[in-house]
Amino acid sequence: MQRIINDPSLVVEDMLKGFVMVHKDIIHVHLKNPRVIISNAAKNQKKVGIVTGGGSGHKPAFIGYAGKNMVDAVAVGEIFSSPTANSFYDAIVEVEQGMGVACLYGNYAGDNMNVKMASMMAKDDNITVKTVVANDDVASAKKEDSEKRRGVAGEILMWKVGGAKAATGASLDEVIDAAQKAIDNTRSVGVGLGPCTIPANGKPNFSIKEGTMEFGIGHHGEPGIRIDKLASAKEIAKEMYNLIINDLPFQSEDEVVVLISGLGATPLMEQYILFNEIENLLNADNIKIFKAYVGNYFTSLEMNGITLTIMKLDDELKECIRMEVESVGLIQIGE
Amino acid sequence: MQRIINDPSLVVEDMLKGFVMVHKDIIHVHLKNPRVIISNAAKNQKKVGIVTGGGSGHKPAFIGYAGKNMVDAVAVGEIFSSPTANSFYDAIVEVEQGMGVACLYGNYAGDNMNVKMASMMAKDDNITVKTVVANDDVASAKKEDSEKRRGVAGEILMWKVGGAKAATGASLDEVIDAAQKAIDNTRSVGVGLGPCTIPANGKPNFSIKEGTMEFGIGHHGEPGIRIDKLASAKEIAKEMYNLIINDLPFQSEDEVVVLISGLGATPLMEQYILFNEIENLLNADNIKIFKAYVGNYFTSLEMNGITLTIMKLDDELKECIRMEVESVGLIQIGE
Repeated sequence: MQRIINDPSLVVEDMLKGFVMVHKDIIHVHLKNPRVIISNAAKNQKKVGIVTGGGSGHKPAFIGYAGKNMVDAVAVGEIFSSPTANSFYDAIVEVEQGMGVACLYGNYAGDNMNVKMASMMAKDDNITVKTVVANDDVASAKKEDSEKRRGVAGEILMWKVGGAKAATGASLDEVIDAAQKAIDNTRSVGVGLGPCTIPANGKPNFSIKEGTMEFGIGHHGEPGIRIDKLASAKEIAKEMYNLIINDLPFQSEDEVVVLISGLGATPLMEQYILFNEIENLLNADNIKIFKAYVGNYFTSLEMNGITLTIMKLDDELKECIRMEVESVGLIQIGE
Repeated sequence: MQRIINDPSLVVEDMLKGFVMVHKDIIHVHLKNPRVIISNAAKNQKKVGIVTGGGSGHKPAFIGYAGKNMVDAVAVGEIFSSPTANSFYDAIVEVEQGMGVACLYGNYAGDNMNVKMASMMAKDDNITVKTVVANDDVASAKKEDSEKRRGVAGEILMWKVGGAKAATGASLDEVIDAAQKAIDNTRSVGVGLGPCTIPANGKPNFSIKEGTMEFGIGHHGEPGIRIDKLASAKEIAKEMYNLIINDLPFQSEDEVVVLISGLGATPLMEQYILFNEIENLLNADNIKIFKAYVGNYFTSLEMNGITLTIMKLDDELKECIRMEVESVGLIQIGE
């Protein structure tokens, strides 16, 4: 295992120390719970609190999205495993300002359970928590079972929309509705070309033969829908695009957000090459790119692979996407 | 070779198409030379033009640093090889506004030759070009041969300082002096844990045995100073720190910029873990971190490894580091 770490069981602790120091202008750590990261902007205005959380190893997700007009507090789990209910609860309490808290997270068993418990604990404190559960990964279950689908990079767009809506002073129900619409309008799919290794395990999380790729792989290495011969960027783009477009019917003249994320070891160069192919496909269908994001936005340690996310927009979503943001993982200067 | 590309000989072309489309709010491509990327902000004020250039495969370097208060135009080479003299020349002509052009680039034979030719061509057009050649990599030659040292991630700080100085309306000589001081005050060192593969070659650029690391490796895989047993983050940090501190004497109460960059496949988590150790070492020496950058700022395709860069500050450099920046690779909001 070729890693720059100290004790493999303390990688999250060690990482958080560095993260908090480097980004002290944007975030700080919870006074009593080192597994909760809070946006410095969280208390600057009376608004609905935005909370998320998830396993570590996906950097800049999740903690990198704490910031102004984005997420207010993030519960931090071990590598690829859910934060505790207590951490979600501490995050919720920290950002409650009398308007309730929107917990916007991904569809994984541990997160579901712990958010549910944290919401019950918060209820005892008279804090109203409502949730949106991201399920944008089209490859993780059939369309008729979409409530079983995993949340992947589309979560970033859900946070962007929820965070922007909350920043306008909207009510909890309005924030929840916007974030729910965001994820309902978003589809993602991933392709894996190489595995990653969780430090505490020391073994790769899956294996993939040289010259092949795994289509529909999850961002913890969950099995995909099939293993294919490694194809060209053009062919990979076409496959990914079709999986998404057939799941969420887009129409000519639609406007979309395209988000391409490397999974860790895939060079930015390849991400731009894939983007170029996706743009060609969208152009051919007369679908307009309103905003594009390309980079390592949601990773899986050093996995070699890429995810494509497309979100269909309406006026409300466009306004939310346009809003300025200042977080570690996403900085967007206002227009 | 596990890559998401089309024709291996066209990766730079394909990448640039995607890059230009995604970031059209920040940069555009030269009208006649597709190998020159220009900041949209370049013509907004009368000032010294800032040019750089280098091989591809280091993304976000070099093109990601074109932007407001940073680099005005970037000449783009093939993977790991110099841009042509013509591309440097086109970049220079594009950003000349009567105050001369500062060409701030890294110390590699091809770049040296092509910048020299481009400067001579520009002279025939009555454009004054002055240069600063980055040589921050302490492991690439002994101190007494520091003019032979390679430029690595310290180039980002040189561009930051040169770009900021130019934005204040400073003269060409003032910009050159500030950029030269920036790189003179900057030292870097890299560690490699795994190789990368240039698409057109199809073979890894070096080999490194599992359980070992190469100290002082260059960011094209140039041989380092020794191969060691893979150590802990704490030990790696100590080694890197000592190499730098012994080369550029720092004193108690100095203020510094710390820049840690992953080389491609090294997870952000590990970069923050290394930063945490570097911070401890600086604290022990009573050296203060004025600004820290941690992330994939200067990569080598999917190389597994990390670089540490430290820059010693004075008041002028601090002012330049503080200035807001809007580029793809570095966005910094003004204070």
